[in-house]
Amino acid sequence: MADRVYNFSAGPAVLPVPALEQAQKDLLALPGVGASVMEISHRSKAFDAIMAETRQLLTDLVGIPEGYTMLFLQGGASLQFSMVPMNFLQGTGKPADYIITGTWGGKGKEEAQKLGTVNVAWDGASHNYSYLPTGAELKLSPDAAYIHVTSNETIQGVQFPSDPKFGTAPLVCDLSSDFMCRPIDIKKYDVLYACAQKNAGIAGCTVVLLKNEMLERVPKGLPSMLDYKLFAKNDSLYNTPPCFAIYMLMLVCRWLKNDIGGLKKMEEHNKAKCKLLYDVLDSSGGYFQGHARPDCRSLMNVTFRLPNEEVETKFLAEAKTHKLVDLKGHRSVGGIRASIYNAMPIEGVKTLAAFMTDFQKKNG
Amino acid sequence: MADRVYNFSAGPAVLPVPALEQAQKDLLALPGVGASVMEISHRSKAFDAIMAETRQLLTDLVGIPEGYTMLFLQGGASLQFSMVPMNFLQGTGKPADYIITGTWGGKGKEEAQKLGTVNVAWDGASHNYSYLPTGAELKLSPDAAYIHVTSNETIQGVQFPSDPKFGTAPLVCDLSSDFMCRPIDIKKYDVLYACAQKNAGIAGCTVVLLKNEMLERVPKGLPSMLDYKLFAKNDSLYNTPPCFAIYMLMLVCRWLKNDIGGLKKMEEHNKAKCKLLYDVLDSSGGYFQGHARPDCRSLMNVTFRLPNEEVETKFLAEAKTHKLVDLKGHRSVGGIRASIYNAMPIEGVKTLAAFMTDFQKKNG
Repeated sequence: MADRVYNFSAGPAVLPVPALEQAQKDLLALPGVGASVMEISHRSKAFDAIMAETRQLLTDLVGIPEGYTMLFLQGGASLQFSMVPMNFLQGTGKPADYIITGTWGGKGKEEAQKLGTVNVAWDGASHNYSYLPTGAELKLSPDAAYIHVTSNETIQGVQFPSDPKFGTAPLVCDLSSDFMCRPIDIKKYDVLYACAQKNAGIAGCTVVLLKNEMLERVPKGLPSMLDYKLFAKNDSLYNTPPCFAIYMLMLVCRWLKNDIGGLKKMEEHNKAKCKLLYDVLDSSGGYFQGHARPDCRSLMNVTFRLPNEEVETKFLAEAKTHKLVDLKGHRSVGGIRASIYNAMPIEGVKTLAAFMTDFQKKNG
Repeated sequence: MADRVYNFSAGPAVLPVPALEQAQKDLLALPGVGASVMEISHRSKAFDAIMAETRQLLTDLVGIPEGYTMLFLQGGASLQFSMVPMNFLQGTGKPADYIITGTWGGKGKEEAQKLGTVNVAWDGASHNYSYLPTGAELKLSPDAAYIHVTSNETIQGVQFPSDPKFGTAPLVCDLSSDFMCRPIDIKKYDVLYACAQKNAGIAGCTVVLLKNEMLERVPKGLPSMLDYKLFAKNDSLYNTPPCFAIYMLMLVCRWLKNDIGGLKKMEEHNKAKCKLLYDVLDSSGGYFQGHARPDCRSLMNVTFRLPNEEVETKFLAEAKTHKLVDLKGHRSVGGIRASIYNAMPIEGVKTLAAFMTDFQKKNG
């Protein structure tokens, strides 16, 4: 096998090796087709089969009941930051409630403000998003068009410990960085979206799940490529979809179902993985300072600081010599971030935990 | 090598085998990186190098001078149908002139009409877009915000024989299906865009080239993901780009430069390829009826009909037994369409031409 590092990138991120190997094997010609998945028409029988299998795998894994529509879009979560208010806020005369628990929630709010009235129901800026609100702390509007929340914030490393369901207005949730890291109760969500390049596949595809009744709220006359209802009507084939990214999503879902055994098993793996790192933080006597309050810690992004920037630079450089790469915190907050998405093997996390303990011994 | 068919799909379409082989080879780990191109951060040094090489190759191949901005976006040409009027029409108080030479030009016009005033300068609907206008036939506005034209219409198979430059207003051109099939004089274009899944790569990436002064026209307050100026300011890295699709664009451009020898050589190949098919049409005594008027014929999409639908069905079925696939015309017009983009080898076209001649002998 190719010589691979342990890649802690926050996204695009590590993929399951079996998915990569399958893609590699068939890259010049899908079996029985005689052309690469990148070359075939999106309206061919071969691609129909890929779309159908992807839908079925997601339905089974997430447990999607009747009454939901699944869309495959482009533009990442960032385009959803605008599509959500275009489809559900603009022209309603109502406000939308935004719960800001980190950088991405803030970006979503900024895009919504261009298109309608936004009520900030909570904002953790004063403590740099180190913890999350309870329902009682939220200042929700009595008549919100929707409530928007981010289930996991990659930059700060905070994650709601379970489905973040608040209020009675329709719940719109950005699950970009924790989709399929654990089971969810989808009935609590009216709209959810997730760019694929964390747990679900590669950059260039965004999964959107909506309750069918939300589609009735979509106003007429939207630009076609920004209209959820039009995409629903066309089964995500209004125009050419990101075919290869959808194919990779299928391969990753196959791995999640067949190799891992579903989202409950995936959650067990993820809890075991992050515990290894949080235990190092908690037993370091403050040498490694975790950013998130312990009850809000993310399964996906473990964020922490070392005593000073100089020692952080040394940490990153030495980590590389152990094949532990892309551990630098987001440029907006600094420090260290270990992103340990679904496909990060526990061996990678063990190697990092051992390196951290050793690093403290030598430098602490 | 894998058993491959001759794939005449209109897009996603055939790719150069050397590009596919290179992608396959490095799919699990880019040399010196230890991770797949699909797994690395879009802000890593390794991906910086891919972006830089892609830009340089496109600059060299197309001959892009100083004063132009190159963007890599998502959403295909269909999103550009809306982004162009959002950035350059909405709020100007001016009309935009649309030259409708086929299905895609018509779709572009429909999206623009949602956002501003559109003047249809020419529309070939009455003859189902079988020929193209001269400059004298256009009804251009005296004060157009821009003139929009489609250089090649894939469904009807009509293509302007050279750069379609009309009028004095800024020219916006959709080159989705003939970008890099031949040299262009880029100075004639103020904005051009091309989805990649025809000649340039795979679905999920759109190349946009703009004169820098066009960026000054972009209004403030657009949704971030729909704002050319914001993407320009961020070197197309405002959010995570479609990394793998950009990588494939790089590999295809390498092939165009190194294996083919540039766009002038590519044009020679393309002219030789389409001549083989048009010669069969012209010498068939009307058995194969070409859709496009001969002076407007496309280098890329050869569209024709057989005497009736029954014989067309037979033609398509027999073609498959010769590994000639995806020759069915677009569902909106029927008939036969042979898309022979850059990466279609001349052997494929020769095989098709021989099959057509033989089919006529047996069935004509």
